[in-house]
Amino acid sequence: MIRFDILTLFPQIFNSFVSESLLSKAIDAGLVQIHTHDIRQWTTDKHSKVDDRPFGGGPGMLIQVQPVVDCVEAVQAMDSQPGQLVMLSPSGQTLKQSIAQEFSQTKRILLLCGRYEGFDQRVIDILKPREISLGDFILNGGEVAAMAIIEASIRLIPGVLGDQESYEQDSFSDQPLLEFPQYTRPREFRGHSVPDVLLSGNHAQIAAWRDQQRLQRTTERRGDLLSD
Amino acid sequence: MIRFDILTLFPQIFNSFVSESLLSKAIDAGLVQIHTHDIRQWTTDKHSKVDDRPFGGGPGMLIQVQPVVDCVEAVQAMDSQPGQLVMLSPSGQTLKQSIAQEFSQTKRILLLCGRYEGFDQRVIDILKPREISLGDFILNGGEVAAMAIIEASIRLIPGVLGDQESYEQDSFSDQPLLEFPQYTRPREFRGHSVPDVLLSGNHAQIAAWRDQQRLQRTTERRGDLLSD
Repeated sequence: MIRFDILTLFPQIFNSFVSESLLSKAIDAGLVQIHTHDIRQWTTDKHSKVDDRPFGGGPGMLIQVQPVVDCVEAVQAMDSQPGQLVMLSPSGQTLKQSIAQEFSQTKRILLLCGRYEGFDQRVIDILKPREISLGDFILNGGEVAAMAIIEASIRLIPGVLGDQESYEQDSFSDQPLLEFPQYTRPREFRGHSVPDVLLSGNHAQIAAWRDQQRLQRTTERRGDLLSD
Repeated sequence: MIRFDILTLFPQIFNSFVSESLLSKAIDAGLVQIHTHDIRQWTTDKHSKVDDRPFGGGPGMLIQVQPVVDCVEAVQAMDSQPGQLVMLSPSGQTLKQSIAQEFSQTKRILLLCGRYEGFDQRVIDILKPREISLGDFILNGGEVAAMAIIEASIRLIPGVLGDQESYEQDSFSDQPLLEFPQYTRPREFRGHSVPDVLLSGNHAQIAAWRDQQRLQRTTERRGDLLSD
């Protein structure tokens, strides 16, 4: 069982993500827990303000240190087991499959989602979160990145995917190669046929063809994966 | 104005993402349109089945070619302007800020989201989509990746973000450097103070400090960005 606590200014964004079939089944089966927390509830500002302009000038607003630190501490105290604190940030380590593997074996994770121009630096100095980035692009906040972390992690928990074997052959799971092309019925569609080898029943030949296709596709599209 | 058509087996996942404040304001202002389409509605199978086992064996199920090709063609015909077809796939080109920039200047984009073990290869052979990956990790489907593309793209459309200047200084926007640390009120919190330079009022010194911090942080965390 893995428990996620999501700390965000927009908890309602997660509503339909959490009720999606695969995730809601995993929650019902007791394999995953998701709790959302509105950072704004922890502000001591009398107008419930959580953001302010940056010192030294510049555009946009920052999330202030007080509500975030107080929120994280309060959420940590909600369970006897403290969680690993993960902050979604474009300055963080880029998410990859090995990190999802690691998260899938963690009992509790707090996902701290920023908005606007980000957090006051002292949030990081005081809480020392692990900073994770979804990639080299900018989102409006950490919420969609948090969904990606949850989805990539929980599908690696035994019992969450219907077909237990399935994820083991996915790209990046064991060796860093892209997937081979796959075909299903009908045998022909608008003049496009399934490759004969896949209909041959010769399992050794099929496996060799698939290996060759993975290598060829990876070489063509993602040579960087082969040189790592 | 940019129009997104999302083609998915789970259209309801997008409900609360679309009603989130920033996106719903952009929709209300006529800057963005989001239409979701359930691929299952286009299957000709009498039991509404859209998936089947792979030829040649292997775990999991594939999405069949017929419902997808028919759905894409029908959705393209819903507007006089055909859209760029983007398929979310771990075998695709990795999303980065320059791609989001490009998408933000596109009038119409169809986002084709897979599930299970992916699509029959003939979907790609016939429709020739641009394949985009969120990163080197595996999700359950393309839906969260589609949200990331929408969010990264629309925030670059003038008028979507409240503060027009704001995105121009974000990481990856102009030069590939991580953000400098930022601070807001209060000046001191639990013994952690705002750096003096930011309170100096000396704009040249502040700019120099920020440049130095960006470079230092990028060197420490993401040397790969500097060698590109």
